Amino acid sequence: MTIDFTIPDEVAEQQDRIRRFIAEQVIPLEERVIGRSVDDALTAELRRRGRASGVWAPQLSAELGGGGFDLLSSSILLEEAGYSLLGPLALNCAAPDEGNLHLLDTVATPEQRTRFLEPLARGDVRSCFAMTEPPPGAGSDPSALRTQARPDGNEWVINGEKWLITGADGAGFAIVMARTGEHATMFLVDADNPGMVVGEHAHTIDASMPGGHCRVTFTECRVSVDDVLGEVHQGFRYAQVRLAPARLTHCMRWLGAARRAHDIAVRHAVRREAFGSRLADLGMAQQLIADNEIDLHASRLLLWQACWAIVQGSRGGQESSLAKVAISEAVNRVVDRAVQLAGGMGTSEETILGRIYADVRAFRIYDGASEVHRMSLAKRVARRATA
Amino acid sequence: MTIDFTIPDEVAEQQDRIRRFIAEQVIPLEERVIGRSVDDALTAELRRRGRASGVWAPQLSAELGGGGFDLLSSSILLEEAGYSLLGPLALNCAAPDEGNLHLLDTVATPEQRTRFLEPLARGDVRSCFAMTEPPPGAGSDPSALRTQARPDGNEWVINGEKWLITGADGAGFAIVMARTGEHATMFLVDADNPGMVVGEHAHTIDASMPGGHCRVTFTECRVSVDDVLGEVHQGFRYAQVRLAPARLTHCMRWLGAARRAHDIAVRHAVRREAFGSRLADLGMAQQLIADNEIDLHASRLLLWQACWAIVQGSRGGQESSLAKVAISEAVNRVVDRAVQLAGGMGTSEETILGRIYADVRAFRIYDGASEVHRMSLAKRVARRATA
Amino acid sequence: MTIDFTIPDEVAEQQDRIRRFIAEQVIPLEERVIGRSVDDALTAELRRRGRASGVWAPQLSAELGGGGFDLLSSSILLEEAGYSLLGPLALNCAAPDEGNLHLLDTVATPEQRTRFLEPLARGDVRSCFAMTEPPPGAGSDPSALRTQARPDGNEWVINGEKWLITGADGAGFAIVMARTGEHATMFLVDADNPGMVVGEHAHTIDASMPGGHCRVTFTECRVSVDDVLGEVHQGFRYAQVRLAPARLTHCMRWLGAARRAHDIAVRHAVRREAFGSRLADLGMAQQLIADNEIDLHASRLLLWQACWAIVQGSRGGQESSLAKVAISEAVNRVVDRAVQLAGGMGTSEETILGRIYADVRAFRIYDGASEVHRMSLAKRVARRATA
Amino acid sequence: MTIDFTIPDEVAEQQDRIRRFIAEQVIPLEERVIGRSVDDALTAELRRRGRASGVWAPQLSAELGGGGFDLLSSSILLEEAGYSLLGPLALNCAAPDEGNLHLLDTVATPEQRTRFLEPLARGDVRSCFAMTEPPPGAGSDPSALRTQARPDGNEWVINGEKWLITGADGAGFAIVMARTGEHATMFLVDADNPGMVVGEHAHTIDASMPGGHCRVTFTECRVSVDDVLGEVHQGFRYAQVRLAPARLTHCMRWLGAARRAHDIAVRHAVRREAFGSRLADLGMAQQLIADNEIDLHASRLLLWQACWAIVQGSRGGQESSLAKVAISEAVNRVVDRAVQLAGGMGTSEETILGRIYADVRAFRIYDGASEVHRMSLAKRVARRATA
Repeated sequence: MTIDFTIPDEVAEQQDRIRRFIAEQVIPLEERVIGRSVDDALTAELRRRGRASGVWAPQLSAELGGGGFDLLSSSILLEEAGYSLLGPLALNCAAPDEGNLHLLDTVATPEQRTRFLEPLARGDVRSCFAMTEPPPGAGSDPSALRTQARPDGNEWVINGEKWLITGADGAGFAIVMARTGEHATMFLVDADNPGMVVGEHAHTIDASMPGGHCRVTFTECRVSVDDVLGEVHQGFRYAQVRLAPARLTHCMRWLGAARRAHDIAVRHAVRREAFGSRLADLGMAQQLIADNEIDLHASRLLLWQACWAIVQGSRGGQESSLAKVAISEAVNRVVDRAVQLAGGMGTSEETILGRIYADVRAFRIYDGASEVHRMSLAKRVARRATA
Repeated sequence: MTIDFTIPDEVAEQQDRIRRFIAEQVIPLEERVIGRSVDDALTAELRRRGRASGVWAPQLSAELGGGGFDLLSSSILLEEAGYSLLGPLALNCAAPDEGNLHLLDTVATPEQRTRFLEPLARGDVRSCFAMTEPPPGAGSDPSALRTQARPDGNEWVINGEKWLITGADGAGFAIVMARTGEHATMFLVDADNPGMVVGEHAHTIDASMPGGHCRVTFTECRVSVDDVLGEVHQGFRYAQVRLAPARLTHCMRWLGAARRAHDIAVRHAVRREAFGSRLADLGMAQQLIADNEIDLHASRLLLWQACWAIVQGSRGGQESSLAKVAISEAVNRVVDRAVQLAGGMGTSEETILGRIYADVRAFRIYDGASEVHRMSLAKRVARRATA
Repeated sequence: MTIDFTIPDEVAEQQDRIRRFIAEQVIPLEERVIGRSVDDALTAELRRRGRASGVWAPQLSAELGGGGFDLLSSSILLEEAGYSLLGPLALNCAAPDEGNLHLLDTVATPEQRTRFLEPLARGDVRSCFAMTEPPPGAGSDPSALRTQARPDGNEWVINGEKWLITGADGAGFAIVMARTGEHATMFLVDADNPGMVVGEHAHTIDASMPGGHCRVTFTECRVSVDDVLGEVHQGFRYAQVRLAPARLTHCMRWLGAARRAHDIAVRHAVRREAFGSRLADLGMAQQLIADNEIDLHASRLLLWQACWAIVQGSRGGQESSLAKVAISEAVNRVVDRAVQLAGGMGTSEETILGRIYADVRAFRIYDGASEVHRMSLAKRVARRATA
Repeated sequence: MTIDFTIPDEVAEQQDRIRRFIAEQVIPLEERVIGRSVDDALTAELRRRGRASGVWAPQLSAELGGGGFDLLSSSILLEEAGYSLLGPLALNCAAPDEGNLHLLDTVATPEQRTRFLEPLARGDVRSCFAMTEPPPGAGSDPSALRTQARPDGNEWVINGEKWLITGADGAGFAIVMARTGEHATMFLVDADNPGMVVGEHAHTIDASMPGGHCRVTFTECRVSVDDVLGEVHQGFRYAQVRLAPARLTHCMRWLGAARRAHDIAVRHAVRREAFGSRLADLGMAQQLIADNEIDLHASRLLLWQACWAIVQGSRGGQESSLAKVAISEAVNRVVDRAVQLAGGMGTSEETILGRIYADVRAFRIYDGASEVHRMSLAKRVARRATA
């Protein structure tokens, strides 16, 4: 055991397979989403290709049909998937399904595995994770949760309102977080439950999430006690079970997208002439390029180290917080520089750059805003210093 | 004559009139563009309201029906107009018409004034400015211009391709820049000229420009010698005539938009509770707020000073370069911080923030990318130091 | 009354006189402080030259022998003085004397004017301002003041400890801030008062302040009731009287020093060859140069506007807070870029750059740390938004 | 072989030994350099302690009396040494000796090993590396080398001028880089060679380097052909042999110093009260603390990866360039934030912070300025993109 940065052969081979798959089978489909959202037909086509190419769900266990790679190896493979914004859909490692798969795999009952986990693992349905609430409900501060569930015989009855629920429109089921007294509990709610209504989409600037970001209302929504996910009152703990790795898989995918943006911009810069020189040879362009290299490289190392810590058995809260804030800000910088380098067409979807720019902004906000992670990091440091 | 920051009474009064107009008559119409582009009906309604409210075209001479304010006073009034992304349309001070109005007012012949300038000043038509070309043509480097015009008897014949031409779709006419030998010349081309074809729109992330950003093709496009704008071979000079103030009116409008974003975010921050405190009272939020105040204040002063220099008779190249690069970057930072402060809904059009975020990015690229202005600034400094 | 950036003729003339004085009579003396502090002999020589050259104390009233310029005009003249780190000493507009002169001129009794203000105005003595205390006393938070003064017959008796008191060693007198019950009071204490002992100097990285930054101890230090500065219990108010303009005069002087650093670096860049090109023609060097131009220009405008607001009768708290935080950070950036541009010798005192770099760092901390000003700015914004 | 971040036991044990050594035997000596340079007596005492404590020269081979750790393990141990600015002296892993030891160990003849390498390894003498020249000689651009060596029988005769030669004053010998025709050659020159004169020290703001940064003049300086280091004409290659790891050992030591600065600032922040709260609990302070954690953690990973690449046999140019620019800028940011957090005393040597702040600035310039490394990084990227 020693410090080592060698990518194991089997991971490198799968990385190569995914790289070719993305280049040959996914990127050619990107023109279908220029100026448009991802529709169900495209999602289905992407998943058909993914399943047929030996690249399906690297992060999922083999028994569920996935690649069976651990979080650290997945960090390499999901970065590769993220090289196209459509890649994670094709590999069934996109948010929010990927986080839900992980959570279900960890805490679902055998019956819940059959009803919810397995169809999701096969890519037959999509899912959503209904936690965020409109003000004054739970944003980054989970203690503000206002959606309530009360027991009623063999059932629980949920009332409340969620918003910005990614993928809700068209999802087969939702994992719903609700307050149960002093605690919180998670529930599995089928899409056809009449007590759950998916409302209007927020018009956010990102456009690559099938099912949008929706308002979801629960009105006397009744679910069986068998639809409690894991144990009653353990909702906050499960949210952490889901969040620490989910944060990191976001980092993986966005790192791939940022690398894509950089590559596009560099290709532009070596071809374009300006002021009697190749753009790539102008000092300010070189600075943009070099800073992108630095940000991408440092982000990858932070990601690997955080995944390694979790795989080693650390709860990984600090590492994943640190990696999330650093990487989300770095990828935003990388994409912004790529846009700048590409000039006139840098903000257009035709070059993909504009799409990545629009899609990546919210990553500094969701799964813990930068400010929240910084606060939490600083508190740990202060605690250590006073210990 | 001394250093003074007093806004003259008549400007302050007009500023107040515009502020109320925007608040009462424009902002309520914004919901019509959530998730949508601006259409002609909305533009017409906005302009009807603008003409009826005594706020029309502050920057335009009184004889053309405008407010007759100079560039410095206009900087205050157009900032106010920019407080809504729809405001400049309503006041007929939006790009690219505003720059075209200025250019036409400076160099058009009496006959051209009647045919092109007056309808544009009344807001009866829109226009576009066809200079930018696809690679390897003219991006930020005007010497790379490839569209050509050749004389043929009483006519000029234009051939070439432009792209990212803002507002081309639906414009009544175009001002077209074409190479004439060693020089460049500007031409006025009617929308119904069969030699000019407006092609596909680029899918850029901004959405508030009526007429989009289009490819425009010129194939044996014939115009009369009377349609030369100003003098033959003076195109590059006229481009500067247009650009120095046009850059600054962009700064004015975007400064208003950035202030709007800041105000929205601050209103959010004083209402939202997080971690047992008002969001606005948390240190990291205070930092975002304070940095926005600083950026907005400094931007306004840079803008005023650059306008003042031009009004004083300086050609204003250095001041407008410096103001453009500083303000375009500052307003991007301000809007980015506002998005961050607003959290979950910060990237949505419902809060307007997402729309401003998407719309403002390209401002660091067009009318001279930041890098081009920095290069030009540094060259002046080096020249001064070697003199 | 309108927005105007014209420097009045009489100010421009005095600016020119100071510029020549600094270039011809002050900069040649700088070699005497390379690797050394400023000693009393040098201070005396500088002041002799200053008094003889018609440039003495621009900010001071004519009746006290100064130039009689208001704060706004002074902003131009003190920037010019600051072009050499020795300039403000030569012109008697250096901290802390300049702030003490202002405070005394505002609140001193006729007898105090004769004993303290007049010798200080003539430059016969130096002074210090004893407010800051070691933890847990008053740093940026004045409410933590622990030095006490109690009345005793016709006297006050001061006990407490101050530190980082700039210029204390060798000062003719101190203005001392002490708690008097719920309030604070300022006292004038002669250097020969046996109850006041000037202790060791802090080894800070700056080196241009005569008299260093000292610990000062008050042990049963008795002063007459006539030595109360202004009124009893008005200490906090007077601290503001002193601070708002003192902050801005710091900005003026440091802006001059930053401009000097920039000029030195640019002269280096136009002479030095690197990689087959003049350093000044390399893109990354151009970026450093352009960013310095932007920072210097914006800083000057922020400074002028804040001074104007105070001259107009605003208490100027917001403007001076904003200007202080923005300018202190901008000048630090400018100097840092200049050091980088100058390369190998950039951190040496021989080029003056190293000296300015070391001297300017603390400016982001004293007279209100950046964080304190940001907090105060954000609070005003939040108050406005809730009003 | 897989990605792993485990510090091997024997490295962790040595790290712990060094940590205790620094805390118990080095830090207590720091008060001897407050406001003073390091003198020879202190250096001798530090080295006596280092040799006696089993921590001597981790990076040096066992046969030379060192710890025999490879570059990757050394990165952990030299970071620990750097926790005090005096630590690397005590462990004989300070610049420039450490780089010279490495170079000599790689290319010296047996006789040179006895005369130069072994005394240096024992810490009996100091050495210097004479490459940098005053303008228009070699700064960051080695092709500008102007010092010449000509063969003359059994000797070489060196003429030229160097400056900013760290440690020259008091060094036992110098490694001198000189032009030999189209190439460059390195020579070993004894301090008592009458042709080599150590001149004045530059007054740089750093103060922890024994022997200063000196001008060194070579006038008909004769050395034997046996004093050619390695082979004739291989000077540029050897400079790379020395530089790639030397750059990284700088990163190691400065990373330790930056961590020290951070720790000092955090200890201050958890003790100091401000505005009714512990400083460490204020949001803006938390931001400074969290950003430092991120920068330190990312720097360490970049450093480890670059060292690993070199140990694996990569020439490591790209990795060490990238790590150098990223880490040198990160440690400067960390120290700057620590100074800010510490407030009033942050710029003083008493808190060590001021000393670290002054000492670390030049690290963004020497061993390749940030701009040079960025240019080189961007060129590699562009080459890859055109391949």
